[in-house]
Amino acid sequence: MALPNLTLILGGAASGKSAFAESLVLQGGHEHPAYIATAQIFDDEMAQKVARHREMRGDGWLTIEEPLDLASALANAQDDQPVLVDCATLWLTNVILGDHDIDAHSAALITALKLRNSPVVVVSNEVGQGIVPDNALSRKFRNAQGQLNQRIGAEANLVIAVMAGLPLVLKGSLP
Amino acid sequence: MALPNLTLILGGAASGKSAFAESLVLQGGHEHPAYIATAQIFDDEMAQKVARHREMRGDGWLTIEEPLDLASALANAQDDQPVLVDCATLWLTNVILGDHDIDAHSAALITALKLRNSPVVVVSNEVGQGIVPDNALSRKFRNAQGQLNQRIGAEANLVIAVMAGLPLVLKGSLP
Amino acid sequence: MALPNLTLILGGAASGKSAFAESLVLQGGHEHPAYIATAQIFDDEMAQKVARHREMRGDGWLTIEEPLDLASALANAQDDQPVLVDCATLWLTNVILGDHDIDAHSAALITALKLRNSPVVVVSNEVGQGIVPDNALSRKFRNAQGQLNQRIGAEANLVIAVMAGLPLVLKGSLP
Repeated sequence: MALPNLTLILGGAASGKSAFAESLVLQGGHEHPAYIATAQIFDDEMAQKVARHREMRGDGWLTIEEPLDLASALANAQDDQPVLVDCATLWLTNVILGDHDIDAHSAALITALKLRNSPVVVVSNEVGQGIVPDNALSRKFRNAQGQLNQRIGAEANLVIAVMAGLPLVLKGSLP
Repeated sequence: MALPNLTLILGGAASGKSAFAESLVLQGGHEHPAYIATAQIFDDEMAQKVARHREMRGDGWLTIEEPLDLASALANAQDDQPVLVDCATLWLTNVILGDHDIDAHSAALITALKLRNSPVVVVSNEVGQGIVPDNALSRKFRNAQGQLNQRIGAEANLVIAVMAGLPLVLKGSLP
Repeated sequence: MALPNLTLILGGAASGKSAFAESLVLQGGHEHPAYIATAQIFDDEMAQKVARHREMRGDGWLTIEEPLDLASALANAQDDQPVLVDCATLWLTNVILGDHDIDAHSAALITALKLRNSPVVVVSNEVGQGIVPDNALSRKFRNAQGQLNQRIGAEANLVIAVMAGLPLVLKGSLP
């Protein structure tokens, strides 16, 4: 069974969500799926994480780096290849830290996702299941992340939560 | 199918748990379900949240504000209408910050829930899936919240976890 | 149905994961299952937690205290009795705070788990679903915990997430 048009992969930190999303895209058998990387590298910790993910991912992916304008990156990606967006959480971080309009950027992202004619898989973090953070920026961020996940979840054909590397289907069914 | 006697809706921050709980109550077709609001408004952030929730909820609800004595509010609510409690987490916060007895208040709440003759839906937060908080009050709170969720979950006929606005049934089955 | 060789029980703080794991081990009907306790008691809060767990657990368990060398404790446990490890998270905390090699210890643990001939149930925390912690040690810990959960999850026959005391099967099926 083929991947549906839009898939959302949710998970906590180090839950195995990226690896699961990659295997989901690869099982479609496309030779060069697109990988939209939203990470911005400011320090060693992030550089190491990006390098580790790149190594795990292996060759064959067409990598597109786009920290902010995800809507254009999606619009410009080749139309007959699946696209993996990793991840909506780093993108949202960039939107918020850059003091951009969250609603406008989210609306543009949703529109771009709906316009794709080939499968898109979006990786995103679950960040709202801890104690209320003691600073306003973190509270703003987790609210925005929760709302973004709801919006993507409402449009997605397939929504999966990953825990300990294992999928839990929230909507639709695994191909 | 009708709502069962007691339903627990769990979810993280901004997971869509309140909207899901409201739709669950409304699908019963009652004209004026009761809404027990436990929020206390101390600052603008909470005032905005309450206003946003009120707008999303729409008219038709009979709102009862009760930050602390949830047991009496449940006992006093009309007996032939469903009740939505939103939420057990803010109520527990009020119990703890007011330095009240958590066990006594929890036991009274459980008793009141069991005495209702029409459906009750309780919204509560999952707060224990982050890193151990570095202050004792937060650790006390997340232990109390986890134990309260377990106690309500043990009595409930239907328990649902909401992620990205989507339900995951933990106990019972959706009406 | 008997317990499979390796079971992983995941959950947040105060989710009821330990009680669920104990009931799972006890339903096998063994008279003296082994309980490997990894907690180190440094303060009153932990002493109270350990005492509460011991009381809930009741008699009949053969308790083995091993904060660090979990691999040897597993190898030395009697071969015809089920073993409950409570929990991988406190063990990992001890490994990290003692500045031991995480990968080497994790690999030894996985090997020891695979060598057991009777059922082992490992309790572990989900810690990655909150906001990114603001200190490097917490971030290191939650990455290591997520990766450990993935490794145990990959070997396990049965993986269960516990929320509000209720099980959600991620892999395999409940006996």
